Amino acid sequence: MTREPARLAAAETVAVELGERGYDILIGPGLIAGAGPELARRFPGARYAIVTDETVAGHHLEPLAASLTDAGLAYSSIVITPGEASKSFEVFGDVVDGVLSARLERGDLLIALGGGVVGDLVGFVAGVVRRGMRFVQVPTTLLAQVDSSVGGKTGINTRHGKNLVGVFHQPSLVLADTGALDTLAPRDFRAGYAEVAKYGLIDDPAFFAWLETHWQEVFAGGAARIQAVATSCRAKAHVVRIDEKETGPRALLNLGHTFGHALEAITGYDGSRLVHGEAVSIGMVLAHDFSVRMNLCSPDDAARARAHLEAIGLPVSPRQVPGGVGTADDLMAAIFQDKKVKRGRLTFILTRGIGQSFIADDVAPDVVRAFLAEQI
Amino acid sequence: MTREPARLAAAETVAVELGERGYDILIGPGLIAGAGPELARRFPGARYAIVTDETVAGHHLEPLAASLTDAGLAYSSIVITPGEASKSFEVFGDVVDGVLSARLERGDLLIALGGGVVGDLVGFVAGVVRRGMRFVQVPTTLLAQVDSSVGGKTGINTRHGKNLVGVFHQPSLVLADTGALDTLAPRDFRAGYAEVAKYGLIDDPAFFAWLETHWQEVFAGGAARIQAVATSCRAKAHVVRIDEKETGPRALLNLGHTFGHALEAITGYDGSRLVHGEAVSIGMVLAHDFSVRMNLCSPDDAARARAHLEAIGLPVSPRQVPGGVGTADDLMAAIFQDKKVKRGRLTFILTRGIGQSFIADDVAPDVVRAFLAEQI
Ligand SMILES: NC(=O)c1ccc[n+]([C@@H]2O[C@H](COP(=O)([O-])OP(=O)(O)OC[C@H]3O[C@@H](n4cnc5c(N)ncnc54)[C@H](O)[C@@H]3O)[C@@H](O)[C@H]2O)c1
Ligand SMILES: NC(=O)c1ccc[n+]([C@@H]2O[C@H](COP(=O)([O-])OP(=O)(O)OC[C@H]3O[C@@H](n4cnc5c(N)ncnc54)[C@H](O)[C@@H]3O)[C@@H](O)[C@H]2O)c1
Ligand SMILES: [Zn+2]
Ligand SMILES: [Zn+2]
Repeated sequence: MTREPARLAAAETVAVELGERGYDILIGPGLIAGAGPELARRFPGARYAIVTDETVAGHHLEPLAASLTDAGLAYSSIVITPGEASKSFEVFGDVVDGVLSARLERGDLLIALGGGVVGDLVGFVAGVVRRGMRFVQVPTTLLAQVDSSVGGKTGINTRHGKNLVGVFHQPSLVLADTGALDTLAPRDFRAGYAEVAKYGLIDDPAFFAWLETHWQEVFAGGAARIQAVATSCRAKAHVVRIDEKETGPRALLNLGHTFGHALEAITGYDGSRLVHGEAVSIGMVLAHDFSVRMNLCSPDDAARARAHLEAIGLPVSPRQVPGGVGTADDLMAAIFQDKKVKRGRLTFILTRGIGQSFIADDVAPDVVRAFLAEQI
Repeated sequence: MTREPARLAAAETVAVELGERGYDILIGPGLIAGAGPELARRFPGARYAIVTDETVAGHHLEPLAASLTDAGLAYSSIVITPGEASKSFEVFGDVVDGVLSARLERGDLLIALGGGVVGDLVGFVAGVVRRGMRFVQVPTTLLAQVDSSVGGKTGINTRHGKNLVGVFHQPSLVLADTGALDTLAPRDFRAGYAEVAKYGLIDDPAFFAWLETHWQEVFAGGAARIQAVATSCRAKAHVVRIDEKETGPRALLNLGHTFGHALEAITGYDGSRLVHGEAVSIGMVLAHDFSVRMNLCSPDDAARARAHLEAIGLPVSPRQVPGGVGTADDLMAAIFQDKKVKRGRLTFILTRGIGQSFIADDVAPDVVRAFLAEQI
């Protein structure tokens, strides 16, 4: 048997240009099973702690571990419980303890193998152990590959709300293994796809049109999936580069998220009723319909957005949420909780058409309430 | 009664030049009782959460709170248990929760009112709540005024060691009220003074000579104390500016600390036996004596360093530590725990004389062990 010391042949590489904090996103199949030589080449002498959740461990820990071992790399592994509840102070403390018990030093790296939950938690741990260690994102959900693993936002939840504690801490490398998505539950794949469609709806009408034609290939895997992930990462990397700390244009990434977060809050973040991507899908449709109401967007463009998400099998109306979403006042209360209100006005991402979103920071709450009352 | 809207007349201002992360250190008496107008001027519209410990609250919370109220500033306060044990995951979680309960937002500020424990903990909380809030250091121990409040190192302890979890997060302002030190226990004042003397011993022989003549005035308060604090802050600010993330020359600040940390570890961080500044005092004397042994430093200069610390009332030998410090092997084991060893060699801060310290990264462990065996 001959060892393969050659460079890992990723199908696509996206460079996140952030000066000394810049890094590469490699995108393609087989990146998990081929990680060892790539890590050995990029981080000579480093040791690793792989952090993952039980479900992902069942599918992907063994191949990753074998690849590190084959490349002569030392690692230990830490396995957490799957699910949003692991983004807690308690699990944070446990993972910190695990990393320190593994006697990792400042030059060593953590590897976040999993979805956004693992990525957000491990990124935060990496950001604070010894005041900052390097880490590698190995996202295994579509959402994590196109969104959460890129951009350096890390964090955990508190009883006061989601993601309220964390740091900006960029990874040193992202390995987005598009083949790893084959084991993902269809519902989780669809939810992640909402964020893919979002990049088209924000400012890339050509990408949206391509998705309308090619979405079945994206779901099937292969070249179209690689292209969809790469285009999404490139879009996110661009926004991150011009607004790393989210003080300006990065807000565009929140298209569909103001309504979406309100729906998630009202359903108690109960994934059996509504997962994040589903909430975003409904939120994007609402953002388009509201833009039509404001005479900003044509009804045809709003219909196109809705039709595509519906074709995927994503929910497009609050009425589709099992158990309902309460009253318009409930939704407004949730929106006010989520957003800072400036002199009585709300900030929303609205749109002038497919791929023509913009930040509107003077939306009157009354108009939103009246609109929502008709949607539920 | 007339309100005083004028600028706070600090006796000294030291600017920490770190670009957009730069800030001022104001040094002088009355800064706590005069904080309100200064904060109102610098941070228009902000609200505050004051975090302090019970002991400091007893002396200084009321004047600070009254000053904020007089200036029309809204604040809430969070009081923790005094002592090193509060630099824990648990108290960290509690303070985060308190800050979020106070409904502070990203533009608002935390105020760390207390010694290094409060400063390190609150700095870390500020660094992670909403991925970074601004904070003001109001150091009330001499150690905190000349060392821990400047430079942005924040953090908490874990069962694996001290300060292993934290972030670099610079304050937005430091108010070093030299009058607040009047309520400090004499032993804590002396311990902080070891770090003042350290700045002279590192690279400022004129400052050391000045301290030899003026130390009694520094202890008494007034202009000499302001000058000692300001000179120390200027020295630390300079090192922080050229090496913010501690990858190079900032290591000079560890003069006396390799031996000192070993002594603290061996005495189980039991402040009744040895506090940090006392350990540093012994450590600095050992660093000088060891430098004499290596033919780097003259015996006269080492004697001067020892004599000054002894005059202050600080311990200068491991033999003075109540309960003893174990064997030379115990000390070496503690040193190896604390330091990274490069190819069997240790890094120490050694010296060629008063104010002539340097980083030596090739010290042979055997030579250190033989030296220590004679000192205990
Ligand atoms: N940091 C950011 O910028 C950012 C952006 C968006 C979302 N997020 C965060 O991401 C999180 C959601 O991420 P998510 O949707 O990936 O959730 P997740 O990490 O909980 O993954 C969803 C489920 O899929 C399982 N799973 C993951 N990969 C799998 C695979 N390849 N095969 C089979 N099962 C697999 C997981 O065990 C989990 O049960 C939220 O906490 C959200 O706040 C962060
Ligand atoms: N961040 C850094 O760069 C840095 C540098 C050096 C030390 N430190 C940290 O600083 C901590 C030690 O700081 P410290 O020595 O100030 O300890 P501390 O904060 O525990 O204060 C010592 C004691 O003095 C009391 N006290 C504080 N101010 C007082 C006042 N004005 N009057 C009366 N009592 C007062 C406190 O309640 C406490 O009991 C350690 O945790 C150490 O790791 C940090
Ligand atoms: Zn999202
Ligand atoms: Zn010290």
